[in-house]
Amino acid sequence: MIDGIMFAGYASGIKAAGLDLGLAVFKEPMNCLSLYTRNKIKAAHIIHDKTIEANPVRALLVNSGCANACTGKDGISDLKVIAGELSNIIGVNDNEILFASTGVIGKRLPTNKLIGALPGLCKNLKGNGIESFAQSIMTTDTYPKIVSETVKGKKTYSIIGVAKGAGMINPLFATMLSFVFTDYPVSPSKIRHTFAKAGKETFERITVDGECSTNDTIMLFTKTSDEDMVGLIDFEEKLYYVMKELSLMIVRDGEGATRVIHITVMGAKKKEYAERIARRIAISPLTKTAFFGCDPNWGRIVSAAGDADVPLQPSKIEITLQGRPLVKSSVEVPFDEQEMKRLMNKKEIELIVDLHDGRASFDIYTTDLTYDYIKINASYRS
Amino acid sequence: MIDGIMFAGYASGIKAAGLDLGLAVFKEPMNCLSLYTRNKIKAAHIIHDKTIEANPVRALLVNSGCANACTGKDGISDLKVIAGELSNIIGVNDNEILFASTGVIGKRLPTNKLIGALPGLCKNLKGNGIESFAQSIMTTDTYPKIVSETVKGKKTYSIIGVAKGAGMINPLFATMLSFVFTDYPVSPSKIRHTFAKAGKETFERITVDGECSTNDTIMLFTKTSDEDMVGLIDFEEKLYYVMKELSLMIVRDGEGATRVIHITVMGAKKKEYAERIARRIAISPLTKTAFFGCDPNWGRIVSAAGDADVPLQPSKIEITLQGRPLVKSSVEVPFDEQEMKRLMNKKEIELIVDLHDGRASFDIYTTDLTYDYIKINASYRS
Repeated sequence: MIDGIMFAGYASGIKAAGLDLGLAVFKEPMNCLSLYTRNKIKAAHIIHDKTIEANPVRALLVNSGCANACTGKDGISDLKVIAGELSNIIGVNDNEILFASTGVIGKRLPTNKLIGALPGLCKNLKGNGIESFAQSIMTTDTYPKIVSETVKGKKTYSIIGVAKGAGMINPLFATMLSFVFTDYPVSPSKIRHTFAKAGKETFERITVDGECSTNDTIMLFTKTSDEDMVGLIDFEEKLYYVMKELSLMIVRDGEGATRVIHITVMGAKKKEYAERIARRIAISPLTKTAFFGCDPNWGRIVSAAGDADVPLQPSKIEITLQGRPLVKSSVEVPFDEQEMKRLMNKKEIELIVDLHDGRASFDIYTTDLTYDYIKINASYRS
Repeated sequence: MIDGIMFAGYASGIKAAGLDLGLAVFKEPMNCLSLYTRNKIKAAHIIHDKTIEANPVRALLVNSGCANACTGKDGISDLKVIAGELSNIIGVNDNEILFASTGVIGKRLPTNKLIGALPGLCKNLKGNGIESFAQSIMTTDTYPKIVSETVKGKKTYSIIGVAKGAGMINPLFATMLSFVFTDYPVSPSKIRHTFAKAGKETFERITVDGECSTNDTIMLFTKTSDEDMVGLIDFEEKLYYVMKELSLMIVRDGEGATRVIHITVMGAKKKEYAERIARRIAISPLTKTAFFGCDPNWGRIVSAAGDADVPLQPSKIEITLQGRPLVKSSVEVPFDEQEMKRLMNKKEIELIVDLHDGRASFDIYTTDLTYDYIKINASYRS
């Protein structure tokens, strides 16, 4: 529960079954900070929201089942029509409503169906409606993703984050939807940098399939008045924690994933080098299928590293998997195959690649690549 | 059959079963031109061959089952030991023998086993041994890949190419093993450029899984003397044809692939833009799984294009699939879902993405991503 915010979820029929429409309404205007996809093709909600989010807002309407991307000008007009209807019902201005969509690209929102669902959706609004709201943005997610914390300042505040995302996940922006709400009062200018940095170190450090979506959005909603500087440091810490946990929930729930691999590349001459190698390994289908098969096939890891287009001293590479050395000076360290398979048959895997070439490092979380990823995605649209 | 070249294949036991050692012996020294992987980690054979291939050579020993990559200095010494043994048997100098390996990365060659097999291998040498030679380099390939042609000059010459490769296939070099032999006599300087260009337009225009291997090698062997300039144009054409056919064989035999998708990106402002978009679409797991499922999920194609990090005018994009327009001005053209599924249920798919932003274009071949890719790669090593 957050003082002054009500949430709702509703089954409007955009999807064949389940909640697909969510609403957050703010008693008083709130500030919004956002991070959007780096994809050159951007969903209608991003184009729409960018025109109004600089001013305080009163509501956020979200949907799953339809990304409203590649829908041209119609996609944006649809949002305006919906804003016109919703604003009447909840008594705010049209330009105080933000949107976010996720689902199939290229289809227009079923506007009439959606408008018809608004009264029922608004009737569901309640202070403890966050779970329904979180469910309404789920697509291939297997569970709703919610993280809450408290912030200690002059008084105690709440911070609640929700997220969705299981596929089309590759960082360098957001690559999912995530919304963080708090009644902690702070002006956007004081936390813009912290928020952007937290985005880089959380949602930009995960990947499921290397795909960057057209809709990726992270929004942070804060109170507009009565700043409480006493709580700033605690707020920043909790904000980071909430965003980190949400991002890990996404990768753990990655489409078809049976494990999460935490890849750390260290000993790099530059952070950029460490990052490129870590990202290259993280999207390597051969590495990811080997992790699915509990196969300590380190050659694929080295090969992916070598394909990252950064300077590399092959003879210095050291690889450690689940705490056991696999490779030293680029040559295999003998290991017990059966024991290694046992160590790899876990939900969480730690992979360290040490380049022994400097002090910079970078880490990222990825999943294994499994039959179920194919199953989920061979016919997602239908 | 090529005048002056004998081929052999042999089951040496590097692999549990099947031919795994191949040999080509040239009656007279031949020139070698080569293209190697762009991976920063290079197999031992590449490091070894580079030191001697500028001079005419007399033999090529190839093996599957072991990549001899990430084996450090030992991997190179192993080759020298083997060259010493083989040179004695076939009566050439040590530094006239080239090597090429494919298989698991990180394991040393079983040198003794290999040396023990050399007499038997050499006994198998014969003019029409190309099929055994081609089989000896197969890993996950389901069939040997051989293409032959004739070249008309002052007389008629032969050109025979072989290749292997089914996974770890992503161009920008070779990304497999391929050897082209000909008795057409031409000096390396006259065809170096043609060969490199043909490499770019054939083996660098295919991908299976976006993985660039440590071992990728293309070699062209030509006669050293009595140049026949009459046949040059025909030779260049046939060389291109042989390389193109071999590269298409590789992608058609892509690990687990059920279809080949020919992606053409046109109407780009620069060729580089078209190339980056085509390559990005070609490695998109979501696009590739959709093709497996016969799902005309064009949103994934547009999303991948938007993620290629090149300037793009979203509103102009046009997509044509199997000759049917799917998207115009970035918005869906209504199509019959069932008919489209039927059209997609083919072995060869034509996908055209027109950016309507210029005149440059680029094309590439990729595969769908299927259960069998996972099956093959979840336990390749074991």
